Amino acid sequence: MLKIYGEEISGNCLKAKYVADLQGHSYEWVNMDILHGASRTPEFLAKNPQGQVPILELADGRVIAQSNAIMRYLAYGSGLIPDDLYLEAKMDEWLFWEQYSHEPYIAVNRFQMKYLGKTADQLEPWRVERGNAALDLMERELEGRDWLVKGARFSLADIALLAYTQFAHEGGFSLDTRPNVAAWVKRCHTRLGIS
Amino acid sequence: MLKIYGEEISGNCLKAKYVADLQGHSYEWVNMDILHGASRTPEFLAKNPQGQVPILELADGRVIAQSNAIMRYLAYGSGLIPDDLYLEAKMDEWLFWEQYSHEPYIAVNRFQMKYLGKTADQLEPWRVERGNAALDLMERELEGRDWLVKGARFSLADIALLAYTQFAHEGGFSLDTRPNVAAWVKRCHTRLGIS
Repeated sequence: MLKIYGEEISGNCLKAKYVADLQGHSYEWVNMDILHGASRTPEFLAKNPQGQVPILELADGRVIAQSNAIMRYLAYGSGLIPDDLYLEAKMDEWLFWEQYSHEPYIAVNRFQMKYLGKTADQLEPWRVERGNAALDLMERELEGRDWLVKGARFSLADIALLAYTQFAHEGGFSLDTRPNVAAWVKRCHTRLGIS
Repeated sequence: MLKIYGEEISGNCLKAKYVADLQGHSYEWVNMDILHGASRTPEFLAKNPQGQVPILELADGRVIAQSNAIMRYLAYGSGLIPDDLYLEAKMDEWLFWEQYSHEPYIAVNRFQMKYLGKTADQLEPWRVERGNAALDLMERELEGRDWLVKGARFSLADIALLAYTQFAHEGGFSLDTRPNVAAWVKRCHTRLGIS
């Protein structure tokens, strides 16, 4: 059986869970206490030298790391990956943008505030600025459309960006002035069947 | 004809060029003076709201951004993407790792030193530390094998990591103590037919 090693406080781990659930994969969720070093033990590093969660362990013991790579693997051949090559590339564009231009600001600031107890004025200003820029870009791109990949339906791009955007307020960001993003978060939740 | 908008000082842009050349795609290289704001003009932002190079413009004017998404598109169906689904996921793992755990340190420090004129002691220590950790991980992973994806041949993973690893010394990092990485850089260069 598939195993997903993760922790539900991590949006990256939720990505793997969301896709596995949507696809109806049977899997065991192995909970990782990442706040107390569970991803840094020798046993875990033997599975993933990168020391990051989530990982997907296949029935034969082989391991895949990196949330977006795991999603792509679990969603292979499904409608979550557009079957048009250009639209698939646009989906990939969002996946890479998420890791480079969204997660390091939205997720990191949330971690600082929610789990390390920092206040908003203790955050690094450049991360606040770039996080706001990321949300502003999403707000503009979602104008007049339901899903992130223009011309496609709900895809891995939406799941990747939902992962931390849904918790943006926990990192001091606001969706109140970003109605397109707020509506899209609700739309994603409905699509995923979560509240 | 395909157009690649890029600048050869950017490893991310070189990725697109390397793959286009390997695949024998005919394309026009549109040089972007990124040090002087060429990626921030209204004309460019209309093509890519993310304001980043490289972009790939298709013959019909549609645009794909994000270096690793562009590589995937250009290499579709070729041996640069393993045709085994697990190995493809392992390739993706490296692509996402590169953008999250390598580029922000190796490429950013190189930019700071080579193009902004900073000295090594003016770099942010945490970026130096994480860059060294990234190179150390590559050194361990390349022990006893030729290419980054274990069990696969030369792939997009190698091109993605080569992009900035080949210039690591320009950011104050050294490959002298990382013989596996140094040998792999030479191997990639040979494979790409560059010196």
